[in-house]
Amino acid sequence: MSVHQHFAASNESYAATFTKGDLALPPAKRVVVVTCMDARIEPASQLGINLGDAHVIRNAGGVVKEALRSIVISQRLLGTHEVVVYHHTDCGMLTFTNEIIREKVNSETPGVAEIVDKIDFLPFPHLEQSVKDDVKFLSENPLLLPGTTVTGWVYDVKSGKVSKVA
Amino acid sequence: MSVHQHFAASNESYAATFTKGDLALPPAKRVVVVTCMDARIEPASQLGINLGDAHVIRNAGGVVKEALRSIVISQRLLGTHEVVVYHHTDCGMLTFTNEIIREKVNSETPGVAEIVDKIDFLPFPHLEQSVKDDVKFLSENPLLLPGTTVTGWVYDVKSGKVSKVA
Repeated sequence: MSVHQHFAASNESYAATFTKGDLALPPAKRVVVVTCMDARIEPASQLGINLGDAHVIRNAGGVVKEALRSIVISQRLLGTHEVVVYHHTDCGMLTFTNEIIREKVNSETPGVAEIVDKIDFLPFPHLEQSVKDDVKFLSENPLLLPGTTVTGWVYDVKSGKVSKVA
Repeated sequence: MSVHQHFAASNESYAATFTKGDLALPPAKRVVVVTCMDARIEPASQLGINLGDAHVIRNAGGVVKEALRSIVISQRLLGTHEVVVYHHTDCGMLTFTNEIIREKVNSETPGVAEIVDKIDFLPFPHLEQSVKDDVKFLSENPLLLPGTTVTGWVYDVKSGKVSKVA
Protein backbone atom coordinates (compact mmCIF):
# COMPACT_ATOMS: atom_id res chain seq x y z
CA MET A 1 0.00 0.00 0.00
CA SER A 2 1.03 3.66 -0.41
CA VAL A 3 2.65 5.20 2.62
CA HIS A 4 -0.31 7.51 3.20
CA GLN A 5 -2.47 4.44 3.90
CA HIS A 6 -0.01 3.37 6.58
CA PHE A 7 -0.20 6.91 8.03
CA ALA A 8 -4.00 6.81 8.18
CA ALA A 9 -3.94 3.49 10.01
CA SER A 10 -1.33 4.75 12.50
CA ASN A 11 -3.39 7.87 13.15
CA GLU A 12 -6.36 5.75 14.27
CA SER A 13 -4.33 4.48 17.22
CA TYR A 14 -3.05 8.00 17.97
CA ALA A 15 -6.53 9.54 17.97
CA ALA A 16 -7.94 6.73 20.12
CA THR A 17 -5.86 7.87 23.11
CA PHE A 18 -5.60 11.59 22.26
CA THR A 19 -6.16 13.86 25.27
CA LYS A 20 -4.64 17.21 24.21
CA GLY A 21 -7.53 18.78 22.31
CA ASP A 22 -7.50 21.94 24.41
CA LEU A 23 -4.04 23.28 23.58
CA ALA A 24 -3.84 26.95 22.58
CA LEU A 25 -2.71 28.15 19.15
CA PRO A 26 0.32 30.18 20.42
CA PRO A 27 3.32 28.00 21.39
CA ALA A 28 3.53 27.60 25.19
CA LYS A 29 7.33 27.95 25.28
CA ARG A 30 7.33 30.93 22.87
CA VAL A 31 10.09 29.40 20.77
CA VAL A 32 10.63 28.56 17.09
CA VAL A 33 12.94 25.75 15.98
CA VAL A 34 14.28 25.94 12.41
CA THR A 35 15.65 22.62 11.21
CA CYS A 36 16.22 20.31 8.25
CA MET A 37 13.65 18.04 6.58
CA ASP A 38 16.10 15.13 7.07
CA ALA A 39 14.40 11.85 8.04
CA ARG A 40 16.76 11.38 11.00
CA ILE A 41 15.67 14.64 12.62
CA GLU A 42 12.81 14.49 15.12
CA PRO A 43 12.74 17.76 17.11
CA ALA A 44 10.10 16.64 19.62
CA SER A 45 12.02 13.66 21.00
CA GLN A 46 15.53 15.03 20.42
CA LEU A 47 14.90 18.34 22.20
CA GLY A 48 12.14 17.43 24.63
CA ILE A 49 9.42 19.48 22.93
CA ASN A 50 5.95 18.63 24.20
CA LEU A 51 2.89 19.02 21.99
CA GLY A 52 1.91 22.69 22.03
CA ASP A 53 5.37 23.98 23.09
CA ALA A 54 7.08 25.23 19.94
CA HIS A 55 6.76 26.23 16.32
CA VAL A 56 8.86 23.94 14.13
CA ILE A 57 9.96 25.07 10.67
CA ARG A 58 11.69 22.54 8.44
CA ASN A 59 13.14 22.68 4.93
CA ALA A 60 16.07 21.20 3.03
CA GLY A 61 19.02 22.26 5.18
CA GLY A 62 17.05 24.13 7.83
CA VAL A 63 17.86 27.33 5.95
CA VAL A 64 16.59 30.42 7.81
CA LYS A 65 16.43 32.64 4.72
CA GLU A 66 13.53 30.53 3.44
CA ALA A 67 11.99 30.43 6.94
CA LEU A 68 11.74 34.20 7.32
CA ARG A 69 8.07 34.48 6.29
CA SER A 70 7.16 31.86 8.90
CA ILE A 71 9.33 33.39 11.63
CA VAL A 72 7.71 36.80 11.16
CA ILE A 73 4.23 35.23 11.44
CA SER A 74 5.36 33.27 14.51
CA GLN A 75 6.71 36.38 16.27
CA ARG A 76 4.21 39.02 15.26
CA LEU A 77 0.99 37.03 15.42
CA LEU A 78 1.78 34.23 17.87
CA GLY A 79 4.16 35.74 20.41
CA THR A 80 7.39 33.76 20.06
CA HIS A 81 10.63 35.51 21.03
CA GLU A 82 13.37 32.88 20.74
CA VAL A 83 14.75 31.10 17.65
CA VAL A 84 16.77 27.86 17.73
CA VAL A 85 18.68 27.04 14.51
CA TYR A 86 19.20 23.26 14.46
CA HIS A 87 21.32 21.73 11.67
CA HIS A 88 22.87 18.22 11.64
CA THR A 89 25.84 16.10 10.57
CA ASP A 90 25.72 14.12 7.29
CA CYS A 91 23.35 16.70 5.81
CA GLY A 92 22.44 16.25 2.15
CA MET A 93 23.02 19.96 1.54
CA LEU A 94 26.77 19.38 1.92
CA THR A 95 26.82 16.96 -1.03
CA PHE A 96 25.82 18.97 -4.10
CA THR A 97 25.89 22.32 -5.91
CA ASN A 98 23.22 24.21 -7.83
CA GLU A 99 24.87 23.08 -11.07
CA ILE A 100 24.72 19.39 -10.09
CA ILE A 101 21.03 19.34 -9.18
CA ARG A 102 19.99 21.52 -12.14
CA GLU A 103 21.78 19.16 -14.55
CA LYS A 104 20.09 16.16 -12.91
CA VAL A 105 16.62 17.69 -13.13
CA ASN A 106 17.17 18.81 -16.73
CA SER A 107 18.39 15.39 -17.84
CA GLU A 108 15.61 13.47 -16.05
CA THR A 109 12.76 15.77 -17.12
CA PRO A 110 13.66 17.76 -20.24
CA GLY A 111 11.77 21.02 -20.84
CA VAL A 112 11.97 22.58 -17.38
CA ALA A 113 15.31 24.40 -17.73
CA GLU A 114 13.66 27.81 -17.73
CA ILE A 115 12.19 27.13 -14.27
CA VAL A 116 14.86 25.02 -12.59
CA ASP A 117 17.83 27.12 -13.67
CA LYS A 118 16.35 30.06 -11.76
CA ILE A 119 15.98 28.15 -8.46
CA ASP A 120 18.70 28.62 -5.86
CA PHE A 121 18.69 25.28 -4.03
CA LEU A 122 20.67 26.87 -1.17
CA PRO A 123 23.31 24.14 -0.65
CA PHE A 124 26.11 24.91 1.80
CA PRO A 125 29.69 23.58 1.84
CA HIS A 126 30.41 23.74 5.62
CA LEU A 127 28.09 22.56 8.37
CA GLU A 128 29.14 24.65 11.38
CA GLN A 129 29.57 27.72 9.20
CA SER A 130 26.01 27.25 7.88
CA VAL A 131 24.70 27.46 11.44
CA LYS A 132 26.81 30.51 12.26
CA ASP A 133 25.75 32.23 9.03
CA ASP A 134 22.08 31.54 9.76
CA VAL A 135 22.30 32.84 13.34
CA LYS A 136 24.02 35.98 12.02
CA PHE A 137 21.39 36.42 9.28
CA LEU A 138 18.60 36.35 11.86
CA SER A 139 20.39 38.40 14.51
CA GLU A 140 20.95 41.20 11.99
CA ASN A 141 17.56 40.99 10.30
CA PRO A 142 15.40 44.08 10.82
CA LEU A 143 12.21 41.99 10.60
CA LEU A 144 13.03 40.09 13.80
CA LEU A 145 11.72 41.62 17.00
CA PRO A 146 14.44 43.45 18.95
CA GLY A 147 15.66 41.30 21.86
CA THR A 148 15.02 37.96 20.16
CA THR A 149 17.35 35.23 21.49
CA VAL A 150 18.91 33.30 18.57
CA THR A 151 21.15 30.27 19.15
CA GLY A 152 22.67 27.72 16.73
CA TRP A 153 23.10 23.97 17.21
CA VAL A 154 24.47 20.92 15.43
CA TYR A 155 22.84 17.52 15.98
CA ASP A 156 25.04 14.46 15.45
CA VAL A 157 23.03 11.78 13.62
CA LYS A 158 25.46 9.06 14.79
CA SER A 159 25.34 9.83 18.54
CA GLY A 160 22.01 11.63 18.96
CA LYS A 161 23.83 14.51 20.73
CA VAL A 162 23.47 18.24 20.16
CA SER A 163 26.28 20.81 20.42
CA LYS A 164 25.84 24.58 20.62
CA VAL A 165 27.95 26.28 17.97
CA ALA A 166 26.52 29.82 17.91
CA MET B 1 16.42 29.86 31.75
CA SER B 2 16.06 30.28 27.99
CA VAL B 3 14.23 27.49 26.23
CA HIS B 4 17.39 26.36 24.43
CA GLN B 5 18.90 25.45 27.82
CA HIS B 6 15.90 23.23 28.50
CA PHE B 7 16.40 21.65 25.06
CA ALA B 8 20.07 20.92 25.75
CA ALA B 9 19.19 19.23 29.05
CA SER B 10 16.46 17.13 27.42
CA ASN B 11 18.83 16.06 24.67
CA GLU B 12 21.22 14.57 27.24
CA SER B 13 18.56 12.02 28.20
CA TYR B 14 17.75 11.35 24.54
CA ALA B 15 21.38 10.76 23.56
CA ALA B 16 21.98 8.51 26.59
CA THR B 17 19.65 5.85 25.17
CA PHE B 18 20.09 6.59 21.44
CA THR B 19 20.54 3.45 19.32
CA LYS B 20 19.75 4.60 15.77
CA GLY B 21 23.10 5.99 14.68
CA ASP B 22 23.25 3.80 11.57
CA LEU B 23 20.20 5.12 9.68
CA ALA B 24 20.75 6.00 6.01
CA LEU B 25 20.38 9.51 4.61
CA PRO B 26 17.54 8.68 2.14
CA PRO B 27 14.12 8.26 3.82
CA ALA B 28 13.25 4.57 4.21
CA LYS B 29 9.58 5.05 3.26
CA ARG B 30 10.43 7.33 0.30
CA VAL B 31 7.83 9.89 1.33
CA VAL B 32 7.77 13.64 2.05
CA VAL B 33 5.25 15.20 4.45
CA VAL B 34 4.54 18.91 4.01
CA THR B 35 2.88 20.43 7.06
CA CYS B 36 2.43 23.52 9.22
CA MET B 37 4.86 24.85 11.84
CA ASP B 38 1.95 24.86 14.34
CA ALA B 39 2.93 23.74 17.85
CA ARG B 40 0.08 21.21 17.95
CA ILE B 41 1.39 19.32 14.93
CA GLU B 42 3.77 16.42 15.56
CA PRO B 43 4.03 14.33 12.38
CA ALA B 44 6.02 11.47 13.93
CA SER B 45 3.46 10.52 16.57
CA GLN B 46 0.34 11.59 14.65
CA LEU B 47 1.19 9.62 11.50
CA GLY B 48 3.35 6.81 12.87
CA ILE B 49 6.59 8.01 11.26
CA ASN B 50 9.65 6.24 12.66
CA LEU B 51 13.05 7.93 12.75
CA GLY B 52 14.57 7.60 9.27
CA ASP B 53 11.23 7.05 7.48
CA ALA B 54 10.25 10.38 5.92
CA HIS B 55 11.30 13.88 4.97
CA VAL B 56 9.23 16.44 6.87
CA ILE B 57 8.91 19.99 5.54
CA ARG B 58 7.18 22.56 7.75
CA ASN B 59 6.36 26.24 7.34
CA ALA B 60 3.57 28.62 8.32
CA GLY B 61 0.51 26.91 6.81
CA GLY B 62 2.29 23.92 5.31
CA VAL B 63 2.32 25.80 2.00
CA VAL B 64 3.73 23.66 -0.83
CA LYS B 65 4.74 26.60 -3.02
CA GLU B 66 7.44 27.50 -0.49
CA ALA B 67 8.36 23.80 -0.11
CA LEU B 68 9.13 23.24 -3.80
CA ARG B 69 12.94 23.69 -3.50
CA SER B 70 12.99 21.07 -0.72
CA ILE B 71 10.67 18.65 -2.55
CA VAL B 72 12.86 18.74 -5.67
CA ILE B 73 15.95 17.99 -3.56
CA SER B 74 14.05 15.20 -1.78
CA GLN B 75 12.95 13.56 -5.04
CA ARG B 76 15.94 14.08 -7.27
CA LEU B 77 18.77 13.48 -4.78
CA LEU B 78 17.17 11.29 -2.12
CA GLY B 79 14.68 9.09 -3.97
CA THR B 80 11.27 10.02 -2.52
CA HIS B 81 8.23 9.50 -4.77
CA GLU B 82 5.20 10.31 -2.61
CA VAL B 83 4.06 13.64 -1.10
CA VAL B 84 1.58 13.99 1.77
CA VAL B 85 0.10 17.50 2.24
CA TYR B 86 -0.98 17.76 5.89
CA HIS B 87 -2.85 20.90 7.04
CA HIS B 88 -4.91 21.29 10.24
CA THR B 89 -7.96 22.89 11.85
CA ASP B 90 -7.64 26.18 13.80
CA CYS B 91 -4.68 27.17 11.58
CA GLY B 92 -3.28 30.66 12.17
CA MET B 93 -3.17 31.23 8.39
CA LEU B 94 -6.97 31.45 8.37
CA THR B 95 -6.94 34.46 10.73
CA PHE B 96 -5.14 37.27 8.88
CA THR B 97 -4.41 38.94 5.54
CA ASN B 98 -1.19 40.35 4.07
CA GLU B 99 -2.47 43.85 4.89
CA ILE B 100 -3.06 43.00 8.58
CA ILE B 101 0.39 41.52 9.22
CA ARG B 102 2.21 44.20 7.20
CA GLU B 103 0.50 46.95 9.23
CA LYS B 104 1.40 45.19 12.48
CA VAL B 105 5.07 44.80 11.52
CA ASN B 106 5.28 48.39 10.27
CA SER B 107 3.72 49.81 13.45
CA GLU B 108 5.87 47.66 15.80
CA THR B 109 9.17 48.20 13.98
CA PRO B 110 9.10 51.33 11.82
CA GLY B 111 11.54 51.53 8.91
CA VAL B 112 11.03 48.07 7.38
CA ALA B 113 8.13 48.88 5.04
CA GLU B 114 10.27 48.50 1.94
CA ILE B 115 11.04 44.88 2.89
CA VAL B 116 7.84 43.73 4.56
CA ASP B 117 5.45 45.18 2.01
CA LYS B 118 7.05 42.94 -0.64
CA ILE B 119 6.58 39.71 1.34
CA ASP B 120 3.60 37.54 0.47
CA PHE B 121 2.78 35.87 3.80
CA LEU B 122 0.64 33.29 1.93
CA PRO B 123 -2.44 33.28 4.21
CA PHE B 124 -5.45 31.27 3.03
CA PRO B 125 -9.14 31.84 3.78
CA HIS B 126 -10.44 28.22 3.53
CA LEU B 127 -8.80 25.17 5.08
CA GLU B 128 -9.98 22.30 2.88
CA GLN B 129 -9.55 24.41 -0.24
CA SER B 130 -5.96 25.18 0.79
CA VAL B 131 -5.22 21.45 0.83
CA LYS B 132 -6.92 20.86 -2.52
CA ASP B 133 -5.09 23.83 -4.07
CA ASP B 134 -1.74 22.56 -2.79
CA VAL B 135 -2.34 19.02 -4.08
CA LYS B 136 -3.31 20.48 -7.47
CA PHE B 137 -0.24 22.75 -7.51
CA LEU B 138 2.05 19.77 -6.96
CA SER B 139 0.21 17.36 -9.25
CA GLU B 140 0.50 19.84 -12.12
CA ASN B 141 4.04 20.99 -11.39
CA PRO B 142 6.55 20.01 -14.10
CA LEU B 143 9.37 19.81 -11.52
CA LEU B 144 7.76 16.84 -9.74
CA LEU B 145 8.77 13.43 -10.99
CA PRO B 146 6.10 11.86 -13.20
CA GLY B 147 4.10 9.26 -11.28
CA THR B 148 4.48 10.95 -7.88
CA THR B 149 1.56 10.11 -5.56
CA VAL B 150 0.20 13.30 -3.94
CA THR B 151 -2.54 13.19 -1.30
CA GLY B 152 -4.05 15.89 0.94
CA TRP B 153 -5.12 15.63 4.59
CA VAL B 154 -6.65 17.71 7.36
CA TYR B 155 -5.68 17.03 10.98
CA ASP B 156 -8.21 18.01 13.65
CA VAL B 157 -6.38 19.60 16.60
CA LYS B 158 -9.37 18.90 18.88
CA SER B 159 -9.73 15.17 18.18
CA GLY B 160 -6.28 14.16 16.95
CA LYS B 161 -7.89 12.60 13.85
CA VAL B 162 -6.84 12.97 10.21
CA SER B 163 -9.24 13.06 7.22
CA LYS B 164 -8.24 12.65 3.59
CA VAL B 165 -9.62 15.54 1.53
CA ALA B 166 -7.66 15.26 -1.73
